[in-house]
Amino acid sequence: MNSLDSIRAIRWQDDRLILLDQRYLPQREEDFICKHLDDAIEAIRDMVVRGAPAIGITAAFAIVLAVREQHARHGAEWRGFIDPDLQRLALARPTAVNLVWAIEQMKSLFATVDSNNPVAALLQRARDIHQSDIDANRTMGELGADLIENTQSVLTHCNTGSLATGGYGTALGVIRSAYRAGRIQRVYADETRPWLQGSRLTAWELVKEKIPVSLIADSAAAHLMKQGDVGWLIVGADRIAANGDTANKIGTYSAAIAAHYHKVRVMVVAPTSTIDMNLESGDLIPIETRDSSELLQFNHVPFAAKGSDGWNPVFDVTPASLIDVIVTEKGIIQHPDTQKIKKLMSR
Amino acid sequence: MNSLDSIRAIRWQDDRLILLDQRYLPQREEDFICKHLDDAIEAIRDMVVRGAPAIGITAAFAIVLAVREQHARHGAEWRGFIDPDLQRLALARPTAVNLVWAIEQMKSLFATVDSNNPVAALLQRARDIHQSDIDANRTMGELGADLIENTQSVLTHCNTGSLATGGYGTALGVIRSAYRAGRIQRVYADETRPWLQGSRLTAWELVKEKIPVSLIADSAAAHLMKQGDVGWLIVGADRIAANGDTANKIGTYSAAIAAHYHKVRVMVVAPTSTIDMNLESGDLIPIETRDSSELLQFNHVPFAAKGSDGWNPVFDVTPASLIDVIVTEKGIIQHPDTQKIKKLMSR
Repeated sequence: MNSLDSIRAIRWQDDRLILLDQRYLPQREEDFICKHLDDAIEAIRDMVVRGAPAIGITAAFAIVLAVREQHARHGAEWRGFIDPDLQRLALARPTAVNLVWAIEQMKSLFATVDSNNPVAALLQRARDIHQSDIDANRTMGELGADLIENTQSVLTHCNTGSLATGGYGTALGVIRSAYRAGRIQRVYADETRPWLQGSRLTAWELVKEKIPVSLIADSAAAHLMKQGDVGWLIVGADRIAANGDTANKIGTYSAAIAAHYHKVRVMVVAPTSTIDMNLESGDLIPIETRDSSELLQFNHVPFAAKGSDGWNPVFDVTPASLIDVIVTEKGIIQHPDTQKIKKLMSR
Repeated sequence: MNSLDSIRAIRWQDDRLILLDQRYLPQREEDFICKHLDDAIEAIRDMVVRGAPAIGITAAFAIVLAVREQHARHGAEWRGFIDPDLQRLALARPTAVNLVWAIEQMKSLFATVDSNNPVAALLQRARDIHQSDIDANRTMGELGADLIENTQSVLTHCNTGSLATGGYGTALGVIRSAYRAGRIQRVYADETRPWLQGSRLTAWELVKEKIPVSLIADSAAAHLMKQGDVGWLIVGADRIAANGDTANKIGTYSAAIAAHYHKVRVMVVAPTSTIDMNLESGDLIPIETRDSSELLQFNHVPFAAKGSDGWNPVFDVTPASLIDVIVTEKGIIQHPDTQKIKKLMSR
């Protein structure tokens, strides 16, 4: 077991949910301990944990905490008090649909669990969701790696690795599998402003894996592609609409347009829990705007001119027309559209 | 006179060249004093002063310092010792052609200046170059503003204002003129990684001018354009090849591709001293790569994962095909090509 596989960004231990606090990486490896639902909500909202699949898994465990609390207060009547908790949890971050998906998964068990002893069964379900995500990542890793034909460099955006998922990673899982199969030479990683997930988290994971990584300014992606040695742009997703339009970290859209211009192929890697069949197209995906301080300060030290204002949307939507392939644990979809996605989801 | 017009990033005072040290803006307004040529070379190389026109003007004054030194040492024989100085100066930064242009301008005077008293005439020429740049900016401001038809928002990249020029600005000069003419509602400014010229300098200038400015992550430009209220991308240039291909701050190319995709028009604003008729196309423009620490650290504090590497090209080339108009002090060129640029340069 290598050092990265031994890292679990999310774990349940001693009746508590323990998260590796990603706000302090790579400088400090510090745990954030959630004993109560509110701790978990804070962790999601403040980006102790981030990445759509990781947010989903955290939400599943958060519901264990919530039910445990309501059961302690109200005994077998806990079901009558849980809905506001679920609603608050669902609002912690708006864009990643995995959060809502996990809540639905857990909720579907409420009717059948033992009213007097609900926790054990719910905890088992949360653990299953966690394990399924890791399994899905492994499958996607293989499926995605098979698409990379020659040894080449690839570009990725944001962090989609062990830290963003249950473990292994989506886009970064594909990169890990492809690198091991000798199909990737070097990974270029966008630093990913403003939160610097690329510099702080993706580089940290790749250095641990001994995969050659070069960080670039997000805006250097087009110039890099012009040099000709990047074959694929490989990214994750926070929500995929029924037609294949994909919301992902701000800058994905920009990079996909540049990829299209340079005939660099675009691969989106995401479990089917990220696909939202309720939304016809990407225009309907809610895009979170976060506080401009993330953009105007570094470590709480303001660097922007006093009195200046910032606009900080943290996701954007890449239309399906710019995506060459979506890789899921159920299979791949070339040139995604509603028809193909519907078919995949019914498997 | 408003507060911005009272700021001179470059001035000659008490026989010294005084530069506003842009490394410390907007936190501190500190002067960097150049008594010797080497001070000026250091200032250009270390980005005390930056922006193609400002680099050119600084180089002109730097030659006054160089000649003064060689004249003090060698008297009327100073001409025999000046070439290595000019060569060192020319190498301070490779991409902005204004540096070489200014050296040529000053050098052309060497044959005719008084061997025993060369400084006064050279200083006058440097002052003329400085004043001409300000005049050119004012002219370009008017010409560019006339192109903006309705009140709309515009996007700019890097800093092209009073700090990057002799005064007033190129792209930011157009924005200032257009705002005063009521043709611009709001300026979106890319923060411009890695050096953050947008957040630190452009926002500082626009706040002083009371022009509404919103900073965005560079990678948010495409998402912004999709919202539909940005009419123009307005940028400066560090070197324009004979065919109109334009080297400018890294990220300009990325933004221009996104603009093309969204049918947002692209305006390049630069004095003719930025046009290099010796280079047929942009492929021949030397692109400076700076130390990766600019990308991996903030205020000397590393934030990227230990052991990770960075690639830090600080310019890129936008092909003429993506540029709607080049604005110079000699006039504007719609859909630039070699023919049109040749014609303009012969005016």
